[in-house]
Amino acid sequence: MKETPEQKRRRLLGLARANVSNAYSSGEHSIMQAIAAYNELEKVANLLYERLEEWYGIYFPELKLSNPVTYAKFIIEFASNKKEATEERLEKTLGTQAKEVARQASASIGNEPSAQEAEMIKGLASQVVDLHASMDKLDKHIETSTKLLMPNISAIVDYKIAAELLAKAGSLNKLGIMPSGTVQLLGAEKALFKHLKFGSKPPKYGVIFKLQRISNSSKRVRGKIARLYATKLAIASRADAFSKNFIADKLNADIERRMERINKGADNRPRTGRPK
Amino acid sequence: MKETPEQKRRRLLGLARANVSNAYSSGEHSIMQAIAAYNELEKVANLLYERLEEWYGIYFPELKLSNPVTYAKFIIEFASNKKEATEERLEKTLGTQAKEVARQASASIGNEPSAQEAEMIKGLASQVVDLHASMDKLDKHIETSTKLLMPNISAIVDYKIAAELLAKAGSLNKLGIMPSGTVQLLGAEKALFKHLKFGSKPPKYGVIFKLQRISNSSKRVRGKIARLYATKLAIASRADAFSKNFIADKLNADIERRMERINKGADNRPRTGRPK
Repeated sequence: MKETPEQKRRRLLGLARANVSNAYSSGEHSIMQAIAAYNELEKVANLLYERLEEWYGIYFPELKLSNPVTYAKFIIEFASNKKEATEERLEKTLGTQAKEVARQASASIGNEPSAQEAEMIKGLASQVVDLHASMDKLDKHIETSTKLLMPNISAIVDYKIAAELLAKAGSLNKLGIMPSGTVQLLGAEKALFKHLKFGSKPPKYGVIFKLQRISNSSKRVRGKIARLYATKLAIASRADAFSKNFIADKLNADIERRMERINKGADNRPRTGRPK
Repeated sequence: MKETPEQKRRRLLGLARANVSNAYSSGEHSIMQAIAAYNELEKVANLLYERLEEWYGIYFPELKLSNPVTYAKFIIEFASNKKEATEERLEKTLGTQAKEVARQASASIGNEPSAQEAEMIKGLASQVVDLHASMDKLDKHIETSTKLLMPNISAIVDYKIAAELLAKAGSLNKLGIMPSGTVQLLGAEKALFKHLKFGSKPPKYGVIFKLQRISNSSKRVRGKIARLYATKLAIASRADAFSKNFIADKLNADIERRMERINKGADNRPRTGRPK
């Protein structure tokens, strides 16, 4: 029995649906969207926090709290009347800082905003708190799903870095076939093309620069550590994408052994002279 | 009786406090902060809306709603199961669009997100809705306080443009003594300095370009309309800052009379040849 055009249309539509379904059901896609949303929320929360500081700073210029959420919560509670910010009431949220902030509040040179303005400032502060709450939720999701989908990679580096590597690569399969040099530069595409096109200095690290071990290391060993991590991450990616074996413990042991050598300087051969 | 150093310190601190108090009690400052916060929130809401569209677009690519809040509200209600989006349930929020959207929802090629992912998408959508609610609150405050503090200016142009003029000028007094040419270019400082430094084209309008009458007009008459408004705004600023008379009705009548002439082309003298 031959298919009618209508039957064919339905069959092909069904296939298309199934393909779409497969492409998005692995969880990869939700990680990539979640990390993108997380980064966007972080940016946005910072923008609004700066705005909040500038605005409420008029009324309480002495207040300096490095945590945006703590700052916003102080405002939600005390923007209308900072004199109410006694040590006892602050202690729960501020701990050891409470005494100092209470003193500043009672001696502040700033006025109180009008009732209407206080409402608006509080509204802005609530946005900051809410945005951070959303970030926390996304963070948890990224953590659980990254550890499930990429157990090896997320055992070697922080799960957010793992998620960003995945997002930059485009899919776990693509990440799995990348050479370590590409892994090392994932996320530095802009600088790489600038290098190729205009001859600026080539980039040395992409996303992996967010690893504290790399960003906090001295410039002398930074490149070595980056290469070390990129190599191990490339191996871990192959395992996560294809063999599905858990080999991260071995990789981590390798990394520690090698780190010790690097820190001792054993790997630091004298620089060979390079022609200029 | 001579002041002790301590008494002097207290007296001067008191003066300082009073000055701070005066500087911020006029309401000018709260308008400037509110318009800055409004612009920031608008930017931020757009960023998150784009992210939301990209994310939920995977699951319902056919859905196109030009209003971000409507789009977000659809997601909050139906992200877990778009098949529930029947015409009846959509009618209240979508009006005439309800039928089309319900049809799209039942025929969509997209899947449903997992429960966990749906929660995150909904969370992002709530942020978009909340940000727009904050914007509405700020908008109302800007409207009432601008109309109170700058009755003439806000009778000639939209209150948000009035607030931005104030913010760019720095204070009502400064705005009040500005020549009309400066008022015309308020907000175009970047382009102006680029012109002065690098010889690029000089800017013709700053904030006032947001006036629909200017941005929607043909290029031939745009400059004339901008000059007309800048002149009247400079007069209105003087009244708002110093005389406090309400002269906007007369100014608006002037504007209308002049606009008629401009639109008729009566003011369009033939261009005189300029030496190159």
